[in-house]
Amino acid sequence: MCQLLAMNCNVPTDIVFSFTGFAMRGGQTDTHHDGWGIAFFEGAGVRHFVDHQAAVNSPIAELIKRYPIKSKNVIAHIRKATQGQVALENCHPFVRELWGQYWVFAHNGDLKAFAPVLDGPYRPVGSTDSELAFCYIMQQLRNRFGTERPARAALRAALAELTQEIAAYGTFNMLLSSGAELFAHCSTHLVYLVRQFPFDTAHLSDEDVQVDFSQVTTPDDRVAIIVTQPLTSNEQWTAFQPGELKVFVDGMPEAQL
Amino acid sequence: MCQLLAMNCNVPTDIVFSFTGFAMRGGQTDTHHDGWGIAFFEGAGVRHFVDHQAAVNSPIAELIKRYPIKSKNVIAHIRKATQGQVALENCHPFVRELWGQYWVFAHNGDLKAFAPVLDGPYRPVGSTDSELAFCYIMQQLRNRFGTERPARAALRAALAELTQEIAAYGTFNMLLSSGAELFAHCSTHLVYLVRQFPFDTAHLSDEDVQVDFSQVTTPDDRVAIIVTQPLTSNEQWTAFQPGELKVFVDGMPEAQL
Repeated sequence: MCQLLAMNCNVPTDIVFSFTGFAMRGGQTDTHHDGWGIAFFEGAGVRHFVDHQAAVNSPIAELIKRYPIKSKNVIAHIRKATQGQVALENCHPFVRELWGQYWVFAHNGDLKAFAPVLDGPYRPVGSTDSELAFCYIMQQLRNRFGTERPARAALRAALAELTQEIAAYGTFNMLLSSGAELFAHCSTHLVYLVRQFPFDTAHLSDEDVQVDFSQVTTPDDRVAIIVTQPLTSNEQWTAFQPGELKVFVDGMPEAQL
Repeated sequence: MCQLLAMNCNVPTDIVFSFTGFAMRGGQTDTHHDGWGIAFFEGAGVRHFVDHQAAVNSPIAELIKRYPIKSKNVIAHIRKATQGQVALENCHPFVRELWGQYWVFAHNGDLKAFAPVLDGPYRPVGSTDSELAFCYIMQQLRNRFGTERPARAALRAALAELTQEIAAYGTFNMLLSSGAELFAHCSTHLVYLVRQFPFDTAHLSDEDVQVDFSQVTTPDDRVAIIVTQPLTSNEQWTAFQPGELKVFVDGMPEAQL
């Protein structure tokens, strides 16, 4: 199993605080030492960092903790290998292009006997069940909607069906973003919170670090953090329901349609 | 215009020495300050770094200069914007997946009135002529060869035709790799050299740095460096002919068929 972390915001925000705690689980406070990765949207572009070293030992993770890259949508992953060897091509998040947008995907869980027919342009490079599921999602979205991206509600409905279909093969906690919004599906473990005015101080669970967000924000800022297990010890995290798909836009979950 | 750098080797090798000189041209010894990028193949996986800051000021470029990532195929680019604004999505190299392999592409030059019909799955995310040309190449290879990658000779012949077709619209110096080999096409400026036993000392042209490669290699190592302008002042660089496509495999150019 692995752990997932995502951030969705209304203004570009750095993820240094949350990533610092999360990266500790990549080999120090937890056993997810088979690689890690993170992708930041910046406009339509993506900064994509993957490493097959444990996050706690990685010079690239060190850079991320020090270099405040600002983004409205971030997806990160630390890996404990279940399927697929420890190799760079098996590190999440994965990136593909669809409808002239980059799509970023990460998965926590294990799929058994999941062998969809891939007859379209999306094919896995590595050997994980996760990348296979991502390619299947890309293929099915393209098959269903053709050459143009549909409205968000149609996309959400299609992803609710697709994630349910895939989750029937095992555990499928997943994060997906094209930079405009963030989709999160929970099979077993996923929690979130929204930080907004009035901001307060947050304490990391995995390291003795705290930040007073009221000092580094404006009253209009809003940030949603989605993660496998709560990252802070003094904030209220809300658990997803099993089978639930949420869409985060501008730092908050979109109301269910 | 921009500058290109590539490395193709028979064993995984770090590019720290060449990148150090090349990065100086990203805003210091030359005026290519509108972003930069580099992609390293590691097995089937790719480490992809892009930044819209000038390479000389970029914390990520600093990391690359210090962290010896070993790779058999590397493509790097420093950008001086001609088409497309300065933005992350316009930084080379670009990455797409075809036939279950990642393909990495970078371009130096300018294409005028190049507007191919893109009716397949590859669509540009940014606004450069370069990414458009890359998407066209991916589409045409997929149209020609279907769902399986052909033998190298067939791929080379197809790319010779495609690069010639695109170069008719302007300047098209380009680098393309799927990790197995490196294709390089020259319209105007591209030079290369092969470093192999007996190794000697090389002096960078852009910075007062030298390396005695005999101290950091084994007699079996072989490395080809392909670049817009020679990187060293004391080695023999060979210029490509205008219109020439070369394929580098295991650190040397493949004989013309």
